[in-house]
Amino acid sequence: MRRAYEDFPVGRRLVSGSQTISEEEMIEFARRYDPQPFHLDTRATENLLGGLSASGWQTAAISMRLFIDTMQVEGGIIGRAIDELRWPAPVRPGDSLRVEIEILEARLSQSKRGYGLIRYRSLTKNQDDKVVQSFVALAILPVADSSSEAEEHSRGGKDSLTSRRGLPRAT
Amino acid sequence: MRRAYEDFPVGRRLVSGSQTISEEEMIEFARRYDPQPFHLDTRATENLLGGLSASGWQTAAISMRLFIDTMQVEGGIIGRAIDELRWPAPVRPGDSLRVEIEILEARLSQSKRGYGLIRYRSLTKNQDDKVVQSFVALAILPVADSSSEAEEHSRGGKDSLTSRRGLPRAT
Repeated sequence: MRRAYEDFPVGRRLVSGSQTISEEEMIEFARRYDPQPFHLDTRATENLLGGLSASGWQTAAISMRLFIDTMQVEGGIIGRAIDELRWPAPVRPGDSLRVEIEILEARLSQSKRGYGLIRYRSLTKNQDDKVVQSFVALAILPVADSSSEAEEHSRGGKDSLTSRRGLPRAT
Repeated sequence: MRRAYEDFPVGRRLVSGSQTISEEEMIEFARRYDPQPFHLDTRATENLLGGLSASGWQTAAISMRLFIDTMQVEGGIIGRAIDELRWPAPVRPGDSLRVEIEILEARLSQSKRGYGLIRYRSLTKNQDDKVVQSFVALAILPVADSSSEAEEHSRGGKDSLTSRRGLPRAT
């Protein structure tokens, strides 16, 4: 099944499958992108993270993969803005991560005909249901049916959507 | 040279070296973490990005590597919060990226003795000086000298620092 803008109304929630992160993958990513002791060395326990843990940017990358596989957007979905990105708990080797998405806002693009914008909250949780990452994003994706878009435009219903939380009103 | 909290007063600016991103690296990252046509396929030009471009999360990861190599913090530096993360222009194969850092705020941690917090703006620019990524971050890092910390605490001068832009007052 391939989806489009119309499949993500406000309030829709999606839960991804899960992906386990290995110590090997963690260290490989850290060597390349975030070479710090607490991401590289299993013996590095004398730090704020209390032991080997994943780079936050790796958690973000894995979460993106889970998001893409879950959303299944025909033609792809592009992030315009990320806010409130937090890593409230460390990701350890062997942790199994999943992503929970909630659609917060949805409107048609005024400048890019054939596209819609969604604002959503993304939570990444581990196998103990602990949140290891959270953010709010604005993303753009294709509409399925440009005739329904024309109808919606003629109603003008989506133009009044305001952007809370400081996200830009991408048009 | 290895640095600590004291080396990053408000107003300090740092510029990283540059790193070139290859088409191969771009596609490899996308296959694993962001498998969408505009990150995978050199022929994918019919999209909002106008051709093959890097996943924003790869730009973030490369920027982290440039940041770590530039900051050179003894004991490491850990991101607590990222806000206003944007990718205003696409990153193409062969682009050469560098990171510019500006320290916006600095204070000692009240709860983690021996650590300080800095808020900084991070800009990633390409070889044409075009900004391809920007964000504001709050990060924690060790102090070099705990006696100067004691002195600062006794003055109480840093306690009044407020957190603008919605960043949490991590303590």
